Amino acid sequence: MAVDVPQLVAQAREGRPRAVARLISLVEGASPQLREVMAALAPLTGNAYVVGLTGSPGVGKSTSTSALVTAYRRAGKRVGVLAVDPSSPFSGGALLGDRVRMSEHSSDPGVYIRSMATRGHLGGLAWAAPQAIRVLDAAGCDVVLVETVGVGQSEVEIASQADTSVVLLAPGMGDGIQAAKAGILEIGDVYVVNKADRDGADATARELNHMLGLGEARGPEDWRPPIVKTVAARGQGVDEVVEALEKHRAWMEERGVLAARRVARASHEVETIALTALRSRIGDLSGDAHLGALAEGVVAGRLDPYTAADELLASLTGA
Amino acid sequence: MAVDVPQLVAQAREGRPRAVARLISLVEGASPQLREVMAALAPLTGNAYVVGLTGSPGVGKSTSTSALVTAYRRAGKRVGVLAVDPSSPFSGGALLGDRVRMSEHSSDPGVYIRSMATRGHLGGLAWAAPQAIRVLDAAGCDVVLVETVGVGQSEVEIASQADTSVVLLAPGMGDGIQAAKAGILEIGDVYVVNKADRDGADATARELNHMLGLGEARGPEDWRPPIVKTVAARGQGVDEVVEALEKHRAWMEERGVLAARRVARASHEVETIALTALRSRIGDLSGDAHLGALAEGVVAGRLDPYTAADELLASLTGA
Repeated sequence: MAVDVPQLVAQAREGRPRAVARLISLVEGASPQLREVMAALAPLTGNAYVVGLTGSPGVGKSTSTSALVTAYRRAGKRVGVLAVDPSSPFSGGALLGDRVRMSEHSSDPGVYIRSMATRGHLGGLAWAAPQAIRVLDAAGCDVVLVETVGVGQSEVEIASQADTSVVLLAPGMGDGIQAAKAGILEIGDVYVVNKADRDGADATARELNHMLGLGEARGPEDWRPPIVKTVAARGQGVDEVVEALEKHRAWMEERGVLAARRVARASHEVETIALTALRSRIGDLSGDAHLGALAEGVVAGRLDPYTAADELLASLTGA
Repeated sequence: MAVDVPQLVAQAREGRPRAVARLISLVEGASPQLREVMAALAPLTGNAYVVGLTGSPGVGKSTSTSALVTAYRRAGKRVGVLAVDPSSPFSGGALLGDRVRMSEHSSDPGVYIRSMATRGHLGGLAWAAPQAIRVLDAAGCDVVLVETVGVGQSEVEIASQADTSVVLLAPGMGDGIQAAKAGILEIGDVYVVNKADRDGADATARELNHMLGLGEARGPEDWRPPIVKTVAARGQGVDEVVEALEKHRAWMEERGVLAARRVARASHEVETIALTALRSRIGDLSGDAHLGALAEGVVAGRLDPYTAADELLASLTGA
C-alpha cells in the first residue's frame, strides 16, 4: 500500500514517533517507496551529531547509552538511539521502547529508540544503518547514538558511520584489552572505562593509556583520545563523557575533519548502494535468455568467459 | 614481461608440463595477458571430464586421487589434478609435483598436478579454479580431478564446477556422517567409503545408504548415487569407482544433463567475472572526482544517496 511520504515526513518533523518508526521501516525494508523517502529526507539531513558506541557484551553499553540520553535530554536536545545488536531477537520492525534498559525514556517524546537486527537486511547492516540514521536526522534529532556490539567487521563499519566513536571497556574483563588489541584502538575517539567502582578500573585505564601512547607519534594538532571513567548505572562520569564528545566535535569542526569524515562516509554509502544495485541487476539475469546464450557459447568454445562477461556488462548498461 | 601466448598454448598441447604450469600461473594471477590466454584456450576446451573429490581431512583424499590417476593412466588417459587446499602453505605458484602423495606420478608426462591455495586469489577460489580447469582441459587432459577439503562454502562451490562430484567418507570418523548431514548429501553423485578395511566401514556405508534414501522420492529415471567401498592405499575398489564415474557420465550424456550442467556452470562463471569487474570499476572510483562531488552533494542534502548511486552507475557504464 502506497504511503503518503510528504505527510509522513511532516509528521516525523513534528515529533510523532509512529511516523519516525514507519519511515525507518520503509528505508530498511527496501520498500518500493525507498527512493521517494530518501529524496524527501535529503534536504532535511545534516543537523544530527552521530555518536557510535561499541564494546564487548557486558561492558554496559545499553546502560551507558541510556545515561547519555538522560544527559542530552537535560540539555534540551532531541535524541535518537539506533541499537544494532547481532544477537537481538527483534526484527527490523521492532517496536519503539523494546529495550528494557531504555524503558525510562520510552514515554519521552524527545527520544526515538530503534532496534535493528543485523540479519535479514538487503545488503547487510552497512546498507541499512545509514538510512535509519538519515531518518532520525531528518526527524530533528540533535544527537543520534548508534549502539553496536563487539568489534566484528560489520561493527567496525558501523563505527565508521559515526562522527565520533566511543569505545567502552570494563575492568576485570580479560577480553576488554584483548579486544582493544584486535583493532578497537584504531576506531575510538573517546574511551570509556565503565563500572569504574570495581577493582581493576585504574589498571584497565592505565593499560589502555599505555597502549594508546604506543601508536604513531602525535603532533600537537592531533586528537589524543581521552579516557573517561564512569559508573553509568549511577550516572557517574556521564557529564564528562558528554564533555569529551563536545570537545571532539569542536576539534573536528575547527579543522574541517567533520566535513571530510562525512564526505568519506557518503562516498562509501553511495558506492555500497551502487554495488548492491549492480549485483541485483546481475542476479535478475540468471535464467535470462542472453546470459544463457552466452554460457552456451562458452561451453561450445565459441566464446571465452571474459568476452562473455564483457557482453553481459554491455547488456546491463543498456538496462 | 609479455609472453608469447600462442606458442605457450602450442607447447601445452604438445604435453610440455612447464607450459601448462605457466598458463595456469597466468590465469590465476590475473595477468594483463589473462584475456589473451582465455581467448586462445576457448576453442580448445570442452573435452575434459571434470571430477570433483571432496571430504573431511583424514578420509584419504590425496591417496584416493592418486589411485584414480593410476587407474586412468592405465587406461591411457591424460590426467590433470587440481588440488585445492585452504590449509596449503603452497601459493598459487606452487611447483609441479609438490604433493608428496602424488610423487609417484610426478615424472609421468601424461599427468599434470597443480596445487592451488584458497587465499590470495582475486575474487577467491570460485574465480580461479574454473580458469585453471580450462587450461588443463585445453592442454589435452581427458580427465581433470579437482580435490578439495571439507564442505565449506567455497568447497561446495568448487564441487559445483565438476561434471561429477565424489564425496569421500571413512569409517570411525564421527564427523563423516555429521558432515554428510551438513550438506554433503546434496552434492555427491558418487560416494566412496575409503579405508574399508577398518572397523565400522559397513556401518558407515549402511548409514549413508539410509540417509540417501531419506531424500525426496526418486523416479526410475533419476540418478541414485552409488556407494563404493575402497582401500585406496592398496588400490582396492578403485576400478569400481572409475566404473561408477563412467556410469554417471553416460547417464548424464543420455539425458542431456551434462550439457545442462556445463551451461549452468558457465553462466555462474560469467556472472562471477562480470561482478568482479564491476566491483573493481567501482573501486577505481574511490577518490575519483565525480564520486567525491556526488558525496559532497549527499552531505549537503542536495542529493539523496540513491540518486547519487544512479549517477555513479551512469558514469560507470560510460567507461
